[in-house]
Amino acid sequence: MDLNSDVGESYGAFTIGQDEDMVPLVSSINVACGFHGGDPAVIHNTIHLAKQHGVGVGAHPSFPDLQGFGRRPMQMKPDDLYASIIYQIGAVEAFTRIHSLSLQHVKPHGALNNLACVDRGVAEVVVKAVKDYDSNLILLAPFGSQLDLAGDDGGLTVASEVYADRNYEPDGTLRSRNYDDALLTGSSEVVQHVLHMIKNHEIVAVDGTSIPVEADSICLHGDGQTAVELAKAVRTALEREGIAIQPLAVLKQRDEL
Amino acid sequence: MDLNSDVGESYGAFTIGQDEDMVPLVSSINVACGFHGGDPAVIHNTIHLAKQHGVGVGAHPSFPDLQGFGRRPMQMKPDDLYASIIYQIGAVEAFTRIHSLSLQHVKPHGALNNLACVDRGVAEVVVKAVKDYDSNLILLAPFGSQLDLAGDDGGLTVASEVYADRNYEPDGTLRSRNYDDALLTGSSEVVQHVLHMIKNHEIVAVDGTSIPVEADSICLHGDGQTAVELAKAVRTALEREGIAIQPLAVLKQRDEL
Amino acid sequence: MDLNSDVGESYGAFTIGQDEDMVPLVSSINVACGFHGGDPAVIHNTIHLAKQHGVGVGAHPSFPDLQGFGRRPMQMKPDDLYASIIYQIGAVEAFTRIHSLSLQHVKPHGALNNLACVDRGVAEVVVKAVKDYDSNLILLAPFGSQLDLAGDDGGLTVASEVYADRNYEPDGTLRSRNYDDALLTGSSEVVQHVLHMIKNHEIVAVDGTSIPVEADSICLHGDGQTAVELAKAVRTALEREGIAIQPLAVLKQRDEL
Amino acid sequence: MDLNSDVGESYGAFTIGQDEDMVPLVSSINVACGFHGGDPAVIHNTIHLAKQHGVGVGAHPSFPDLQGFGRRPMQMKPDDLYASIIYQIGAVEAFTRIHSLSLQHVKPHGALNNLACVDRGVAEVVVKAVKDYDSNLILLAPFGSQLDLAGDDGGLTVASEVYADRNYEPDGTLRSRNYDDALLTGSSEVVQHVLHMIKNHEIVAVDGTSIPVEADSICLHGDGQTAVELAKAVRTALEREGIAIQPLAVLKQRDEL
Repeated sequence: MDLNSDVGESYGAFTIGQDEDMVPLVSSINVACGFHGGDPAVIHNTIHLAKQHGVGVGAHPSFPDLQGFGRRPMQMKPDDLYASIIYQIGAVEAFTRIHSLSLQHVKPHGALNNLACVDRGVAEVVVKAVKDYDSNLILLAPFGSQLDLAGDDGGLTVASEVYADRNYEPDGTLRSRNYDDALLTGSSEVVQHVLHMIKNHEIVAVDGTSIPVEADSICLHGDGQTAVELAKAVRTALEREGIAIQPLAVLKQRDEL
Repeated sequence: MDLNSDVGESYGAFTIGQDEDMVPLVSSINVACGFHGGDPAVIHNTIHLAKQHGVGVGAHPSFPDLQGFGRRPMQMKPDDLYASIIYQIGAVEAFTRIHSLSLQHVKPHGALNNLACVDRGVAEVVVKAVKDYDSNLILLAPFGSQLDLAGDDGGLTVASEVYADRNYEPDGTLRSRNYDDALLTGSSEVVQHVLHMIKNHEIVAVDGTSIPVEADSICLHGDGQTAVELAKAVRTALEREGIAIQPLAVLKQRDEL
Repeated sequence: MDLNSDVGESYGAFTIGQDEDMVPLVSSINVACGFHGGDPAVIHNTIHLAKQHGVGVGAHPSFPDLQGFGRRPMQMKPDDLYASIIYQIGAVEAFTRIHSLSLQHVKPHGALNNLACVDRGVAEVVVKAVKDYDSNLILLAPFGSQLDLAGDDGGLTVASEVYADRNYEPDGTLRSRNYDDALLTGSSEVVQHVLHMIKNHEIVAVDGTSIPVEADSICLHGDGQTAVELAKAVRTALEREGIAIQPLAVLKQRDEL
Repeated sequence: MDLNSDVGESYGAFTIGQDEDMVPLVSSINVACGFHGGDPAVIHNTIHLAKQHGVGVGAHPSFPDLQGFGRRPMQMKPDDLYASIIYQIGAVEAFTRIHSLSLQHVKPHGALNNLACVDRGVAEVVVKAVKDYDSNLILLAPFGSQLDLAGDDGGLTVASEVYADRNYEPDGTLRSRNYDDALLTGSSEVVQHVLHMIKNHEIVAVDGTSIPVEADSICLHGDGQTAVELAKAVRTALEREGIAIQPLAVLKQRDEL
């Protein structure tokens, strides 16, 4: 199992997230590419941190919207979106090269990710961009999303992720944050949720429905008061269960054997 | 001899330069990387154009100053500047990869180039960034500048350039635009200036002083009313003299044999 | 009748539009506020030009999207959109103050305008922002749009506009640019269209349907090859017909008498 | 005596400073204008907070450099700088209008402030911008700086400030942060420094030199671990000494009687 988290989102004097604490706890990181956060020096330092801790590095491209932290849906022309993703992957890979690492994966950020999960057209633009850039890159996508499906159909290696601290609807989509029970908050509740998904290969939706799931990665949020605490709890629980925590590149390579 | 020009500087709805006309006339282009101009779709289209015409592609990194078109001196910390250059080279190389091309060279833009020409510290940051990214990249620098020297000392392959339409001071620096005779304007004057530099290996400065020069490339400005006309005149004159016009990569490879 | 045009959209070295030629031909201008175009110096110069030619000055607020020229729909939270509009109006009014002018009107730009024309919620955010800022400002809105209606309901003085060079659907919306007949191109065709709207108080839609219309202002596009030529033709035709061309502030003041 | 602090510097999802805690402790605030921090919604909320606590509101214009937080020196043309300052003042004043407040003062931010303190030309551009915008605005400038002097000469009401937690050189400039003793750190040390400046009308420089000083305002830093604690200590000490803490507008009005 892989653990992933969004990092490198600070920008100049603006610090966000707890990267120093989170990176050692996960096996893969999604590095902001400068469009919603992540100035060049931040990317440089983040990938240096990744190297120190041996975690897999992914690009985390976004809509060009620093003010909205990439969380505001934007209607970009497909050609513009395609080029924006290429640009951002290249910018992040430049720093993996500096640190003698390889880029492992791509995971879209925020509103772009949300759109790609439900809009097949957007998903296909993302897939084409990743594939044209480097068809060996892994696409990290929410399990069962349009992005997951489009990646498969496009011939990419897709790693599917589930969220450690989110409830699900019966159709496999995330419970909207408009509901009080969208988020799981306590450590024990989150750990139980994660272990159940991994061991039973199912998500129990908010209404009790069982959703079959095969996840490669657990997404851990890096912001919020309890982010580090939750990440530690999940990691510890997995280790106690004897579940190896490995970067996507290792996991997916093993899949192919 | 190589002919180079700055291109790909348009941004969204903002069009600048005459890339469609200029690219076929030169052998190397300096592609804006998004910091002073050049949004991702523009970079994509520009490198597509480069491929069609077989010209060498360089990254043209800048200070992060879209409003000032990279022409305003900024004091960046060396680490920030270093990371900014890495980021920009990576972003442009991403598109050479998409088009199955290789990145040929790096040439700093505007105020960053001006600073790197006179400030050894800034020059060394540029050189280190280029070298750490890919030590096979050619650095394109004004002949005799601090950047030219720092590139040599740093072990990079440096191509030196002279300006087709600029007068020079006796010390080899450009005549300031504050003077009326900073710019050569007529086609015949520009052609004569260029041919003299190439054939006699000297620049005649504004006061008549002879400056020895060995240039690999002639820089042609892409903006202004007469840019295309001047570029055509220079190209035609070189061809008439039997001087082969070749991208930097070809020229510098031959140098090494 | 008022003639209005979008101006002041240049940004740093990026020049767009033909403001020097357009401003003398219209009676009101919509000045970009820095979010889709219009850096501070451009706004300053544009309002100086407005003063020289005695045209009414409006703020032309946009989504924060320089790369997309404000033409890409974005989902902003109402509070963020509200504050963004206040900010932009204040920024432009600062320069009317410097030039001893008064701000006359507000007209949203691009995708924000399009959304406000069909989405009552967005329209009401715009109306509230204008009203809270200065309830004496005129809101310039497409005739019959949700923005027009929301302005009326909100108690603002609304000036309604029609487009000189656009065809209309039977329901009063603009013919989509996806159709070949979206734009009227010839001078005589445009002039005839404009005169018919003014004199007969109707728009003849693409299918021949008659749409009753009472317009205060004709919107003239400032970009494109023929923009200045069309503007001249419209202005000349109106003058020949004895129709006074006056800024919105004059027109709406007269309405109230 | 006035107490001032920089606030409203958060930007979208990027939170910086402790405005909720600082605003109640000071009598005047310097509100970021969007160029180094402070998106429109942040400005809106900040001025709402100012109204609740009855503090004077100033605009805090900066170089256009979000990535560098306005701390990187930039060479802007005087006309561009002038227009940038006008723009930023207008943007912030828009929100004082919404909240039925008046703009009290202007204080340049970061690198712009530093430059205006030593470069008379830059200082005069700032003074001209403030004066042209509204000659009744107070200019808040470091005591004895070029900005202070240029404001006086330009006929503006100038309020001079000293820093609560900074050591001074014998010539009245701030001790560089390159030295270990640049900053005063303990509460008691800071309080003693402040009281000495106010009661004895002198600053004791690092070498013991006495510098006569008449300050209208004490600048309290809003960032850093101990910012709120230091602000409380200074405020409490002033109140204990019976020194009234009042916004600049009140202080300078009294001066004129």
